Amino acid sequence: MSKTENLAQHLEKLHINNMYKNDFYWTWDKTDDELDAIFTVADALRDLRERNISTKIFDSGLGISIFRDNSTRTRFSFASACNLLGLDIKDLDEKTSQIAHGETVRETANMVSFMADVIGIRDDMFIEEGHKYQKTFMDALDEGYEKGILEQRPTLVNLQCDVDHPTQAMADMLHVIHEMGGVENLKGKKVAMTWAYSPSYGKPLSVPQGIVGLFTRFGMDVTLAHPEGYEILPEVEEIAAKNAEASGGSFKKVTSMEEAFKDADIVYPKSWAPFKAMEKRTQLYREGDKAGIDALEKELLAQNAEHKDWSCTEDMMKLTKDGKALYMHCLPADITGLSCVEGEVDNSVFDRYIEPLYKEASFKPYIIAAMIFLSNVKDPVAVLRDLEKRGDKRKEV
Amino acid sequence: MSKTENLAQHLEKLHINNMYKNDFYWTWDKTDDELDAIFTVADALRDLRERNISTKIFDSGLGISIFRDNSTRTRFSFASACNLLGLDIKDLDEKTSQIAHGETVRETANMVSFMADVIGIRDDMFIEEGHKYQKTFMDALDEGYEKGILEQRPTLVNLQCDVDHPTQAMADMLHVIHEMGGVENLKGKKVAMTWAYSPSYGKPLSVPQGIVGLFTRFGMDVTLAHPEGYEILPEVEEIAAKNAEASGGSFKKVTSMEEAFKDADIVYPKSWAPFKAMEKRTQLYREGDKAGIDALEKELLAQNAEHKDWSCTEDMMKLTKDGKALYMHCLPADITGLSCVEGEVDNSVFDRYIEPLYKEASFKPYIIAAMIFLSNVKDPVAVLRDLEKRGDKRKEV
Amino acid sequence: MSKTENLAQHLEKLHINNMYKNDFYWTWDKTDDELDAIFTVADALRDLRERNISTKIFDSGLGISIFRDNSTRTRFSFASACNLLGLDIKDLDEKTSQIAHGETVRETANMVSFMADVIGIRDDMFIEEGHKYQKTFMDALDEGYEKGILEQRPTLVNLQCDVDHPTQAMADMLHVIHEMGGVENLKGKKVAMTWAYSPSYGKPLSVPQGIVGLFTRFGMDVTLAHPEGYEILPEVEEIAAKNAEASGGSFKKVTSMEEAFKDADIVYPKSWAPFKAMEKRTQLYREGDKAGIDALEKELLAQNAEHKDWSCTEDMMKLTKDGKALYMHCLPADITGLSCVEGEVDNSVFDRYIEPLYKEASFKPYIIAAMIFLSNVKDPVAVLRDLEKRGDKRKEV
Repeated sequence: MSKTENLAQHLEKLHINNMYKNDFYWTWDKTDDELDAIFTVADALRDLRERNISTKIFDSGLGISIFRDNSTRTRFSFASACNLLGLDIKDLDEKTSQIAHGETVRETANMVSFMADVIGIRDDMFIEEGHKYQKTFMDALDEGYEKGILEQRPTLVNLQCDVDHPTQAMADMLHVIHEMGGVENLKGKKVAMTWAYSPSYGKPLSVPQGIVGLFTRFGMDVTLAHPEGYEILPEVEEIAAKNAEASGGSFKKVTSMEEAFKDADIVYPKSWAPFKAMEKRTQLYREGDKAGIDALEKELLAQNAEHKDWSCTEDMMKLTKDGKALYMHCLPADITGLSCVEGEVDNSVFDRYIEPLYKEASFKPYIIAAMIFLSNVKDPVAVLRDLEKRGDKRKEV
Repeated sequence: MSKTENLAQHLEKLHINNMYKNDFYWTWDKTDDELDAIFTVADALRDLRERNISTKIFDSGLGISIFRDNSTRTRFSFASACNLLGLDIKDLDEKTSQIAHGETVRETANMVSFMADVIGIRDDMFIEEGHKYQKTFMDALDEGYEKGILEQRPTLVNLQCDVDHPTQAMADMLHVIHEMGGVENLKGKKVAMTWAYSPSYGKPLSVPQGIVGLFTRFGMDVTLAHPEGYEILPEVEEIAAKNAEASGGSFKKVTSMEEAFKDADIVYPKSWAPFKAMEKRTQLYREGDKAGIDALEKELLAQNAEHKDWSCTEDMMKLTKDGKALYMHCLPADITGLSCVEGEVDNSVFDRYIEPLYKEASFKPYIIAAMIFLSNVKDPVAVLRDLEKRGDKRKEV
Repeated sequence: MSKTENLAQHLEKLHINNMYKNDFYWTWDKTDDELDAIFTVADALRDLRERNISTKIFDSGLGISIFRDNSTRTRFSFASACNLLGLDIKDLDEKTSQIAHGETVRETANMVSFMADVIGIRDDMFIEEGHKYQKTFMDALDEGYEKGILEQRPTLVNLQCDVDHPTQAMADMLHVIHEMGGVENLKGKKVAMTWAYSPSYGKPLSVPQGIVGLFTRFGMDVTLAHPEGYEILPEVEEIAAKNAEASGGSFKKVTSMEEAFKDADIVYPKSWAPFKAMEKRTQLYREGDKAGIDALEKELLAQNAEHKDWSCTEDMMKLTKDGKALYMHCLPADITGLSCVEGEVDNSVFDRYIEPLYKEASFKPYIIAAMIFLSNVKDPVAVLRDLEKRGDKRKEV
């Protein structure tokens, strides 16, 4: 039996009727079966592609991407996913088109979506803004579709907001599942999601939030570690705690990197901005207080600099399980002695893990494609089987 | 009988032999049958898409878009139309490629068109320049095709020039036809194309020109209203007058918004720049007179500010037929109390018409697709029927 | 027998097993048969397109383009070639994504290539840098493919580096072959690759290098002419000399434009930067010495200005074979009295050769497509025949 047929049989058993025509904002909106379905379809699409079988489910149609923050990796992952399924990509560049929040979002959302099947949005810069923007955008499309303005209701893939970064966290988890030899081997594994020092400023909180919000669902012991002041959104901590309870794992918070790394199977050391500062920054931007923003930036960099010992050094790695924890990062990392003088991780550590790090990243296009697939196809099992049966070549050989 | 078959039978009766391999500059270049064909094909393409039937007539090929002015709506409409028919879109960004007029246009036109089936150009900023640029570009492609440099002669879709904005005017008219329940119901309808105050500066004249140049062909009573100094191109006024005479309608000019709105079935209040000022601005740009341009801008804004009473208020709407005229706009509008302090239209009026406004916009991708279809397909009736008969799915479901 | 079948029969006789899954850096890396194969496939793809036969060999997949220098012509040629074969194009814009050399190149290369079948890179600004960047990029993809990070190993098309500009030189040569009525007529033809004055600064050396490196392989008498100080890379001169010897032609260097033009069948007058200056500029950029760069620019422009007599005037053209040599240029040219006061070529000369110049350029998309075809298809003869046999229409007619 082919791998894809195996996966199709697994997919058949899942309760996923709610995914069709639905958006993907946060992993904690989704049931376990729905997340399982995404992993399953991602693996199936990858299997088909490896076997040079076309996975185009769209003959035409657009994937609209909106990046309100710089991006290379996610931009190419979204473009790759769209291409894999047969969609053309069209970037909405807000600098030239001058879009603001509120009423104009409603209008723009409809104006760019006449032929859109998928919308991918990254908006992670400001606490309380990113998710709101995505929600406003998609609500406008609901209305447009109901009123017959749009022939179809495009579905959302959240490419990172202020709350979650689901395509990252899901790709990370699929990587972990493969590294650990199956989801059944995750129970009891110790995960350290920890803050790390970086000379840069203002990185979003959505990666640590996404990781603790998702990884706690698999019966693992998840530790969130950061210096005082670098808290994440309290509502996400609550979600993580509830997840852990439900899955038979645990979730705890510590203020020491060493404690988190101790005996860890998986470490995810990464910089992010202090929560309070992010809230303040949002306020300063709203007020257009340029001087205030500059002053805040200086203050934050000084605050960061007090925690240079939060770094994934060789010594730190020795604390982990057999000194061989799986090192993870969403990339790009700030690498000590390579991209900066002092950063998140030692060059020798990073270099040793390059292969798994790139593999980790390689799941993202398939995760995004699976999200699009499951929200656009009514009977995903039948369509997967049909693609395999038809066996159209992806490329001539 | 399907809607598409109905439309195909209507299309069969029209004399449209001249459309194949031809460009679309202005609506008044085209016969009534040719415009009818565009509306008909637009409706058919929309019908097929609604029924999830592929309308790809290109297996490969490029649609080249050139935007010499900012654009979101038209940019996405052109991209959507190309995608609907199977063309990839490639933007020619002039800022990076540094293209000028004249000889270089001839060269660039050929260099970017080796695989191009369609060229879409917006060049609306300068009186006497926009159309000239499009003409120079397409003449160069004629030559390139004749000499065997290009394997095909791409056709033009004018995405707005200094004279006409045909994709806008045609989408607007198709909206009117649908709202009024058919083209046969347009005779005697009263249309008010009026200037409106906006705090912005220098909007092109091509929308009012396009509207009076097209709407006068349907037996309607079209009134053009604007303050002194905001005249449109005299040659377009002449065309409108001739059209009205031929179609059994009327065309008149007034200098009062109230007069135009009185008993109107359709109102189209919109800001545009004073004609003389646009001519002067073109001259100043040619001379590179930056100070002169700045001075002119101040002068114009002051001139605009004398006409703040030209606004589509609730009171103004009450003057229209049963107080319920169809409000139209090409979007984005300057909305009083929403996007500006005083603008083209009251927020409450605009908000009441959001649904028809978005519908109006939704016709543009199909109008553009119909223009491309009719200029690229020799026997459009046969191809429409063939698409329906084949019934290839646009997307898996 | 069709032209394509004729070409397929010729292709069948060539030894080209080494092309599959291989990169294209420099023409001198390739055997005569391999270059012949590219010309042959380019002609076949053009024949099929002329006959409205689809040449899509990819059902999905991405062509990634990276332009580290401005480009319109090559950018559109690459996009056209990808489109012709069924690939979507995705530009990696380095300004927004902030990519540097070294380790980050390795990472970025993998991150953008998950669905990439082809990578096209232009990096021609700095001596000793352009090729190195391409090599680093592709080596990283080798590693990524071996380690299972990438499902496929994308192949490179060098869109211009500091050493060669193979898509230009190959398109130029295919043009010459067609103009001369076949490759068998090239023996003994006299070619003048000469420097010409231009008021601009710092044009890459890769065009003259590419031309002498390639044209010497066809038994022609190639003369490289330039003022003192405008030498090209010595290793490329050596290659040209060896090629000439092997092919029964000749390669010589002169310091007089007149001497090179005398009795020439083909002239290619074009500006480039002095070699030593380019080396110095690279060093200044490495050191970030802005003042040094500005000073160097002034110095170079002054040096250039001493050689204004190196221009392809009408008088100069009279020296050539019957006064009718084939004038070639990669475009855009600096045209005396049109785009500049004094430039590379007289307006009247340039204007007389516009048709062949545009034809010359028209081969580039097909050359690039042939390179992609031959590096992605295992049995190119069978695939060409299959495309013709299937006869899928490129567009409805």
